[in-house]
Formats: sequence, C-alpha cells, structure tokens
Amino acid sequence: MSMGPEPINLFDFEAAARERLPKVEYDYIAGGATDEISVERNRRAYESWALRPRVLHDVSALDLSTTVLGTKVSLPVLIAPCGGHQKAHPEGEFATYRAATTCGTVFAVSANAGADFEELAKAASGRRWLQLYPFRDKEMTKDWLRRAKDAGYEAVCLTLDSQWPSKRERNIRNGYRNLRGVNFPKAGGDAARGRPGAHPGGGDPAATWKDLEWIKSSTALPVVAKGIMTGEDAELCAQAGADAVIVSNHGGRHLDNTLATIEVLAEAVAAAKGKTEIYLDGGIRRGADVVKAIALGAKAVFIGRPLFWGLAVGGEQGVVRVLNILREEIELTMAKCGRPTIASIDATVVVKAPRL
Amino acid sequence: MSMGPEPINLFDFEAAARERLPKVEYDYIAGGATDEISVERNRRAYESWALRPRVLHDVSALDLSTTVLGTKVSLPVLIAPCGGHQKAHPEGEFATYRAATTCGTVFAVSANAGADFEELAKAASGRRWLQLYPFRDKEMTKDWLRRAKDAGYEAVCLTLDSQWPSKRERNIRNGYRNLRGVNFPKAGGDAARGRPGAHPGGGDPAATWKDLEWIKSSTALPVVAKGIMTGEDAELCAQAGADAVIVSNHGGRHLDNTLATIEVLAEAVAAAKGKTEIYLDGGIRRGADVVKAIALGAKAVFIGRPLFWGLAVGGEQGVVRVLNILREEIELTMAKCGRPTIASIDATVVVKAPRL
Amino acid sequence: MSMGPEPINLFDFEAAARERLPKVEYDYIAGGATDEISVERNRRAYESWALRPRVLHDVSALDLSTTVLGTKVSLPVLIAPCGGHQKAHPEGEFATYRAATTCGTVFAVSANAGADFEELAKAASGRRWLQLYPFRDKEMTKDWLRRAKDAGYEAVCLTLDSQWPSKRERNIRNGYRNLRGVNFPKAGGDAARGRPGAHPGGGDPAATWKDLEWIKSSTALPVVAKGIMTGEDAELCAQAGADAVIVSNHGGRHLDNTLATIEVLAEAVAAAKGKTEIYLDGGIRRGADVVKAIALGAKAVFIGRPLFWGLAVGGEQGVVRVLNILREEIELTMAKCGRPTIASIDATVVVKAPRL
Amino acid sequence: MSMGPEPINLFDFEAAARERLPKVEYDYIAGGATDEISVERNRRAYESWALRPRVLHDVSALDLSTTVLGTKVSLPVLIAPCGGHQKAHPEGEFATYRAATTCGTVFAVSANAGADFEELAKAASGRRWLQLYPFRDKEMTKDWLRRAKDAGYEAVCLTLDSQWPSKRERNIRNGYRNLRGVNFPKAGGDAARGRPGAHPGGGDPAATWKDLEWIKSSTALPVVAKGIMTGEDAELCAQAGADAVIVSNHGGRHLDNTLATIEVLAEAVAAAKGKTEIYLDGGIRRGADVVKAIALGAKAVFIGRPLFWGLAVGGEQGVVRVLNILREEIELTMAKCGRPTIASIDATVVVKAPRL
Repeated sequence: MSMGPEPINLFDFEAAARERLPKVEYDYIAGGATDEISVERNRRAYESWALRPRVLHDVSALDLSTTVLGTKVSLPVLIAPCGGHQKAHPEGEFATYRAATTCGTVFAVSANAGADFEELAKAASGRRWLQLYPFRDKEMTKDWLRRAKDAGYEAVCLTLDSQWPSKRERNIRNGYRNLRGVNFPKAGGDAARGRPGAHPGGGDPAATWKDLEWIKSSTALPVVAKGIMTGEDAELCAQAGADAVIVSNHGGRHLDNTLATIEVLAEAVAAAKGKTEIYLDGGIRRGADVVKAIALGAKAVFIGRPLFWGLAVGGEQGVVRVLNILREEIELTMAKCGRPTIASIDATVVVKAPRL
Repeated sequence: MSMGPEPINLFDFEAAARERLPKVEYDYIAGGATDEISVERNRRAYESWALRPRVLHDVSALDLSTTVLGTKVSLPVLIAPCGGHQKAHPEGEFATYRAATTCGTVFAVSANAGADFEELAKAASGRRWLQLYPFRDKEMTKDWLRRAKDAGYEAVCLTLDSQWPSKRERNIRNGYRNLRGVNFPKAGGDAARGRPGAHPGGGDPAATWKDLEWIKSSTALPVVAKGIMTGEDAELCAQAGADAVIVSNHGGRHLDNTLATIEVLAEAVAAAKGKTEIYLDGGIRRGADVVKAIALGAKAVFIGRPLFWGLAVGGEQGVVRVLNILREEIELTMAKCGRPTIASIDATVVVKAPRL
Repeated sequence: MSMGPEPINLFDFEAAARERLPKVEYDYIAGGATDEISVERNRRAYESWALRPRVLHDVSALDLSTTVLGTKVSLPVLIAPCGGHQKAHPEGEFATYRAATTCGTVFAVSANAGADFEELAKAASGRRWLQLYPFRDKEMTKDWLRRAKDAGYEAVCLTLDSQWPSKRERNIRNGYRNLRGVNFPKAGGDAARGRPGAHPGGGDPAATWKDLEWIKSSTALPVVAKGIMTGEDAELCAQAGADAVIVSNHGGRHLDNTLATIEVLAEAVAAAKGKTEIYLDGGIRRGADVVKAIALGAKAVFIGRPLFWGLAVGGEQGVVRVLNILREEIELTMAKCGRPTIASIDATVVVKAPRL
Repeated sequence: MSMGPEPINLFDFEAAARERLPKVEYDYIAGGATDEISVERNRRAYESWALRPRVLHDVSALDLSTTVLGTKVSLPVLIAPCGGHQKAHPEGEFATYRAATTCGTVFAVSANAGADFEELAKAASGRRWLQLYPFRDKEMTKDWLRRAKDAGYEAVCLTLDSQWPSKRERNIRNGYRNLRGVNFPKAGGDAARGRPGAHPGGGDPAATWKDLEWIKSSTALPVVAKGIMTGEDAELCAQAGADAVIVSNHGGRHLDNTLATIEVLAEAVAAAKGKTEIYLDGGIRRGADVVKAIALGAKAVFIGRPLFWGLAVGGEQGVVRVLNILREEIELTMAKCGRPTIASIDATVVVKAPRL
C-alpha cells in the first residue's frame, strides 16, 4: 500500500479515496437518494448516544470476537454486500475477500459483484455469504441458491429494500451507468431494468412475504433479510423464517427521509423478540459507533462505503487497514467503558445525548 | 421547452427560474412576509417527519389517483390559486390550465389571475376552481359566483387569510407594484387598496363567519376555505358549511412567525372530524412531502411557487414536467413504503424525526 | 430626517445607525455582558413561540391603546430608561421625549440621562417616569423622589439588577468611559464607582427588599420595579408594594447566561398573581414580538436599543418612525390573528414552536 | 508579564497562548480524543443551564472561600493535575505552584510533572496534592505514597480513566512524542508504554476496585478519585473509601463521545449520597461556569488548559491573572444572583435552558 500520509482513521481513507477515484465513481459510492438526508442522518445519529466511561474493570485482556449465525468472527464488523468492487481497485472482490479472511470476518458478496461468485469462493478461505434479491425469475433464484451452497457460501442475504429503482441525483447528473453484475444472465430478466442512476439488478416489485418464505424453504442455507427499518417488518421477517435481519436503509441510497438505522435499531430488536439475530449497517465510521450499535442490541455491524475507500487507497491491504483501525478503536472504547468482551457490552454503556 | 441541463427536481426548476426571471419578479414569487421565517419553516418542517420504509408488499401496480370534492384526480397534487401567471410566461394561466388538464389535476384560478376567467375556461377541459375573497362588494361576489358556475368552474375557493395587507419586504425594497387582476372592475371596490408590496385584491377586513355562510348559501358550488392554521378555525369552517379546508399560511406570504402548515395539519384534521376534506399547501417540493402530508391526514396538496418555476422554465411543458417529477417521486415513495394506493397511505408511514 | 433608502423595519434602523455612529458608541449600545449570550437569546427566543392566525373576525377597526399604571397609552410600547441619549443625537432625551409624546406613549427617563430631568419635563406634555436605583445615599433618593413628583413625573422606576458592575467586554476593549449622568452630584456618592466599562451610576450593593419598601413609603408616586427575572422576585416585588414589575435582564448587559425575558415572563406573571402589572423588555424588534409578549401576559413592553437607532438615524422623527413601524406591525399581527383590541390578545394567540 | 493587549478573559489567554506556543505544543494542550466531540461538548454544555438573577440581597461583602477535604481555599477553583508545565513556560510547575499559593488554592501535581515532586514541594507554601495512577508496580506506588506524605502533600489524586492509551489524532499527525515525567524510574515499568500520541505514564489496564481499596489502605492521606463519569462509579468510589471524586472525562482527551462533565455531575452527586465530596473539571472558562457547577452540586472545580494558557502568556503572573479573572467573574455572578457566599449557591441559581 503506497500512499501519502498514513490514514489514521476512516475519514482519512475517505479523503484519500476521493483524490484517487474518478469523480463519477466517488460520487456513486458517496451518494444517496434525492437530498441525501438519510445518508447524513445515518452518520450524525450516532452522536445522539453518548458513551458512559467506567473505571477499574480489568481490561488487560480484551476479546472482540463474537458469533454471527452461530459461528465465530474475530470482530463484530462484517463486509456489507456492495456491487462492483473493481470500480475501486482492479482486484475488486478478490482483494476484499482476502482482506476479510485475514481479519477473520464475513464477506457478503453482492448479487451485483464484478466477480463470478463461484470463482471468488476459491480465492480465500474466510466466511462468505451471497446476497441476492427476491428476483422475478424463480428458476434463476433456485439456480443461485444451489450454486451458492455448492460453492461453500454459508448463508444467503436477501436484500428487500430495492424492489423499486431509487433516485440518485449525483448519478443522474453524472450520466453514471451502473455496470451489470457478471453473475446475471447476459440478457433479459430483472437485469434489463438498468438505466442511468438505477441498479441494473434489483428485486421484483411484486415480491411479497411469500417470496421470503419460498426462498427460506428452497435452501438449507440460513437466510439473512437485509433492508429492514421498522419493528413490524422485523417481526414479519422472524415469522417468515429469516435467521437474521439487517437493519439498513441501504446507506441512504434507496429511500431518503428515513430515520437513521441506529435510531430504529432498538425498535427492531424489541420486535424480533430474540427470534432472529439483528445486525445493522449505515454510517459506521468509528469503533465507538460499533460499540453503540452493540449496546443498543445489534449482534454485529456491516461496513459499506469504507470498504471502497480501503480498496481505492490500498487494495487488499487497504481493506485490512480499515478493519484494523476499527478493531483498535473498538478495543479502546471497550477498555474505556470497562467491557472486556462483546457480551459485556450492554445497554448501560450508552445514554441519550441531548443535542446541545 | 429549451433549456440547459434538464432539471431533475424542483430545486433545479427554482434555480433555472431564478436565472430567467427579472429579480423583482423572482423576488415577488420567492418572498414572504417580514423575516420570511414561515417561508423557511414551511419547507424545513417536512424533515421533522421521517418515512418508514416497508418491504415485501406488491407494489408492481401503483395507483396515484384519488378524489377531491368527490371527483377523481390522477395524482394528489393540485395547482394553488396564485395571481399573475403571465409574470412567469407569456401564456400565463392558459399554459397552466392546459398543463393541469394534461396531468389530470385541478387548476384553481386566482381572483388576481392575469386572464379573464371565463375565457380561460374555454382553453382546456380539465377540472377548474375559481378562487375569490370575502369581498366587501356583495353584488360583485354574487356576480362572480354566478359567472363561475356558468363557466363550468366546479368549486369556489375562498381565501380567508388576506383580509389585511401583508408586509413583504422584498417587494417594498424592489418598489414592486402588483398588477391588478383583470377580472376586477376597472376602478374602486376592494381592488383600490393596492399599494407597493400589497395584493391589489384581497378580502374585506370586516368579514366574519357570516360572510362564509352567506357565500355558501349564495351558490350551488362547493366552497373550499383556504388559509386555515388552527383547529378552531377548521371546526368553524365545517360548521359554516365549507366543503373543504386548505391548511395554508399563504406560503408564508401574509403573517410571518406561524408554524409550518405540515405542523398544524393534524390539529386541523382532528378538529374537522371528517366533516370536510382537508388539503394542505406550503413548501411541497418533493414527492416525499406529498406522502407525508397524506399520511398526516391531508386528502391532497397544492403547489404554488413550483408552478411559476415550471412556467418560467418551459411554459406549459414546464408545468407538466414539474407535476411529472412529483408524480415519479410520489411513486417511488409509495413503493418504498409498501403503499400501492393513496388510500393505503396511513399514519404508520411516518414517524417524528427528532432534530439531530 | 434625511437618510439613504428609507428604513422599513427596525433592523434597517440598526444597520443605518451602525453606519452613522462612532464604533465605540455603537458598541456601547449594541454590546452586552461577557459573551453576549443573553443579548442574542433575548432576540432569538421570540422564535420559540409561533403565532396562530385566525380568520373571519372583523378587524376593520383596530384599537392598539391600552393602559399602564391605570392610564392610557396609544400603543403597548414604552421607552425604556437608558442613559445618554445625546450619544446618538445632539438633542438627546429632548428629542426622545417629544417623539414619545407624539406617539402617545410613556418615556421613562434614566437616572443617567444626559439632560436635567426637571428641564426635560418642560419640553413636552407626554407621560414621563423617572428611573433611579436603590442608591446608597438616602438623602439624595428622597430629594430625587420629591423633585420627580414636583416635576410631574408620574411614576418612579427602580432598577434592581445593577447593584454590581457588569463586565462588558466591548467597552473594556474600546476603552469606553461612560459619561456621568448630569443629574448626579458632581463628586462622591454612588457615582464615583465609575470605571471603564461600568455604569457610573448604579445601585447600592447592600440594598435589600427593605430599601424597596422604604422607597415605596417615601413617595406617593407608583413604583415600578425593573430587572426581575424570576417568579420569586416578582412575588417579592408585589409583597414589597411595587405597583408594576418589568421583566428584564437589562438587555443582556448585566448578567450573561440568563434565559431570555420572554422565556421567564409567564413565570413572573404567574407569581405576581395579578397584584402588579407585568411589563417586559429585551429584544423587541417586530410587532409580532410585542403581540407574543402580550399573549404571554405582559401588559406592555419597552424598547431600548431601537430608540438609539431611531435617534441616530433621524433624531425625534427617527424615534417616531421606529414607534410607527412597530405600530403598523402590531396592527398587521393583530388583524391576522383576528384580535381587534389589545385586551383580545390572549394565550391562544401563541403556541410553542419546536426548534426545527 | 509582558504582552500585547491585556487579556480580559480566558479566551483571550487561549488566543495569546496559541500565538506564542509551537503548534505541536498548542495542539497537545488543545486536542482531545478522536473527533474531539467531548472537548467541545464539555464547553458548550454550560449553555444548557441558565443563571437565575436575583435582586435586593445584600451582596456588599462577598466571600468566595470554601473548603476542600476540610481545609480552606480562597476560591472554589483548583489546579488540575496536568503533565509537563515546562512545555508552556520554562519555570513549569514551579511557576504554577507559586501562583496557586498566591491565590490561595490547591495545586494538584501530575505524576507526569516535569519537576521532581519533592523539590517542588519546597518552592512554595500552598496546598499541594500529588496525582498518580493505579500503577502496575505496587512497590513504586508505596514509595510514592510515602514520599508524598513526607513532602507535605496533603492528598493523593488517583486518575482512573487512563488505563488504556487514548487516540489523540492531533498528536499522531504532529508526530508528537510526550516527554516522560521526571518522577518515573528511568526505564521499565508502566512508563515504557510511551508511544506517539499516548501518555508515557498511565494506569494498569488490569487495575480494579481492589487497587483503589489497597491504595486507600496504604496511606494516611485522603484519596481523591479522578475521572468518574457515572453515578455507578461515584458510588463505587465512595464504597471503596475515596474521600472525594472528580467528575472528569479528562478534558475529552481519553474517550470521545461522552456526555459533558457538567451533564453527569448531578448523577454523580446523587449517587455519592454525600459520602464523598464531588469536584468537577472540563471546559471551565468563565466564572459563570464555576457557579453553575456549584449550583449543580460540585464542591469545587479544576482548571486544566487555562493553566497552560496562563503559563504561556505570563508564567507565574499569567496563572495568577487567570485565577483572578475567574475570581472576578465568580464575584459578579454571585452578586447578580444574590448569593454572598459559596454555601448560598444552591440549585435555584440555575434552570435548564432549552436550545433555541
């Protein structure tokens, strides 16, 4: 990884990525729906909770490991499914997957990945999930589910918030045309909906809860439902058999004017009544954000944009560094709050911080 | 419609209109009373409610149509009564009316229109309402009511917040003298109150609820009361026989320092107890705003300033484009919130969003 | 009054005065204690209450007159006691008094006036009050009380918040040395406490409630207690026999970090239990502010800084214009809220406006 | 003390110090952990409470003295333990100690002081405390406790929030390497943890409440526990035998994203149930801040950064001036609130000030 002054936090990575990437690609990564209110809110909302430092706990041996879907990760930060890693670095998803493996975490491969997901599976040994949408094409879905299992993907992540194209104004103004994921058939099907500013892949607008039930019944793999922003839907996911739920507004990239994900986390956790694990993505930039999310009930969190910044700045090693910075900041936060393990991070770690 | 980069949202239309219009006209359209606090608040208050995305509803066939006063419109966005469309485009109200007809919505013609309302009625086939004030001159009022009915106006809209001149400081500083509406008699009467910065037309300062009752009893047309900002007045409108109420602070152009219209909507809806339909205007710029207003109880909304921006940028086609942009954004919002019809937009679509 | 573009509101007067006055004098007028938080809060706090427009009340004949201490004023805006009017205009207090007389309101003459208060009394016929402090020198106090009555002052206003010098950093930095009021003896007494940044006149630091009782018992004139910011002190004023209370933080010029006066008004009104009239000063710049203060329980309000701006811009006529602008804005606000008289302005005119 | 325009408040001292100090030293003093949110919040939170002025109390004889640990100080402002005073002035801790003695307050000497604490003790006669950490090296601890007592230190201050290194990004970017305190052994032990951006001294990450109990039992000196931010820990300190607690987030220099110290003060006071004295540090810049902290339950407050500004600007006399400015501002605030003694400052002096 050759670069200028060493980035010491994720904002440094963002700034360095902005310098290295073509504007249209940077904008694609940074941008969100319409006025980008949710993009900003996702980030700022973490400031609504303050940490409560605690003293005189033995924090000489910190353990950041936890489990997701019953299996260990070395830190509670996973890689969110995002399309087109090759936009940020020529090695694309291969670099990311090796980095995730190095860091002992899960890589969720996007339906819109720039790499063949079966080839990718051979590139490293770490935990891998495959993301898909509730496609209109049921045969393709069954095919993907079967191939995912065969290729050693240990879960499928079903993105539920993309059944209608979004309005991303940076992309429209830039004339940005998203590349079609290589895993899709060459023509027809859902992928044909591509247009400037819209994902070429995406869900069937007619999909209903029966589709989730059908997918769950069509595979032996655990199903992770992504894109939930209400208690009602978290409960419905649990009822439909989802093994986990990702509280997500797609990084503010689909519907604007939502609450931040950290703001609806507690509602989702309460509604799920422990029947599914609850994860969160959106605006995670500091170890403190991760600890706050866990304190409010998340089992783990995902990062999206910081992954691209890491790739843009240093490829595989850039992603490793991004994850390691978060790891160090999580350690610091746990130590200062007197919490030596992830399990010891409970609701008393945080308190609402009134806006001053 | 020939212009530079295609406007992709209503803020683009505003910016383009600003470039095209003389400053004094742009200021007349943009400005409000005294410190323009209400102008800004009307807009910003929409951010106080967040949308709640819902997933896995079949949104493959969206229907944006609804009814106002019992008759269908193709989308819940109507054209507010505003004077002097010719200031923004030579075809003035004729262009607007044809656009409204194309888009399947209601055009409320202002008492201060630059076009003869009887001639205008012949220019297109869409739904049209005629706005008037509680004039001092009862004979003129009866005459207008009769002519409105004869000319196929299907309702009268009675503006109630203009019984005293406003203080619009941009207009005063610009020496702006509002044109007298062509529908008024050439001299005398209410119209003579014109002075720099004030509407030449306006209501009788001595008007009372009896005047509303009298107008209601003087016409077979439905009466829409415009300019209500309290539950008390919404209830009084219902008691006086109004068929509908427009929650409005006149776009912040009459009394400054009010709440935003979206903030008082629920109070008006509760007070009207379903006896009248409740509409809203003020600060609508995004489809999300429309959906929020409907979720909080509005039957439909009106746009004012964006109409002028559309006219300034592209005449009739500009207004069509403004309405179509709103239509697309409403569709997106409904789809992402899992609401295929206007009737399915209920209070669970929104939640208060604390200021961060 | 010769000037550039005609000021149309009090902020215009402020800007014009800033151009005309030497910086040290402008700063003296504009400045406040330490960080000037209270100066700004006095002003901004009015935005915390919104006006509630009402329609279809007969507002064709507005009456802005009310009474203070039982006697009529033509509008509920009085002139606060402020020292040194000659700093803003050579005619000083004489100009102000003639303006107040023209406008039918009360002029409260400061203990630190630049004019002999007995001479001043002969310059016009309007209502006049004399302000003083709880001086250390009891004989001087008795002398002033007697002379005030003889000179036709109809009340004394006792300023209670100035028993300790303030820290006005603009004055300290400017090396500003306040002039000694001409009504004080030439040497010694309280006036000798003068130093850069401090009032040369001021109250006795040892004064207690007994001093207020003693002053009340030493004169037949009504006593108005100025500088109250708590319910406790409003109640104590009533018990000590004050005829009226001015809720005031001295325009943020004595103790910083207080609430705004409009924020504590209701507390003072409640505590006084109707035993004294309650007035308010601080940050009044718009007619809407006056109406809000009355809605929240003030009998009338005072202006301070705008008086100097009026003097600086146009002497006597400038002050008249300042008062007339407020009058027109109060009229507009009353009309738009459906309140034809001051007595009809009640608590339903306002509602708390959450910060957006 | 030779300098430009005389500083009239602590912000002036800050600005002057910024001009005089090398950037890396200024940054070391000014900076905080990661995003410096807590640094800013410590300061801004004082604005969340307003002062309530009271009138007609005899404030002619103000007494600012109070006691800490049962012994008198002439004002309720103490000098916080901070390492390396020689960075701001060649006389370092010697200058500070003489200034504290002159002003009649306590000087808490840092474990990371640039001066030998036994030599320092001979330099003046004022009250002195010695700060240390719960060191890993118990023998060194016993040695320090013995030597502190022998050298006339009247209390030990145990810093509890530094058991894990902080992340101070200004220091990392500046390549700042903190000097090792001269009181530490030349090699090994805790001091060896030094690295860019981290304190060379600090606490044992394995320390627990037993260590506090052990220290308490190992010395006859009173023990002051510093770095408490929760009611739980305040209560645990009391149970472990601490004689006093300093509510502190280390000036925002250790864990970011906490509440301000003034925000958690009441929680700590309530939890301590009067068993220990409660002090506070963090963001004190004005006399009003001191009065607010006392009103909310603090027995006294500490200053940290302003001490360095005073040293940088004028050495010993600079520190005296900083303390005297605070003294004058405390006097003014007490007088304006009608509180002649520290004991008379109770909770009715303050009220929550909603953000406007």
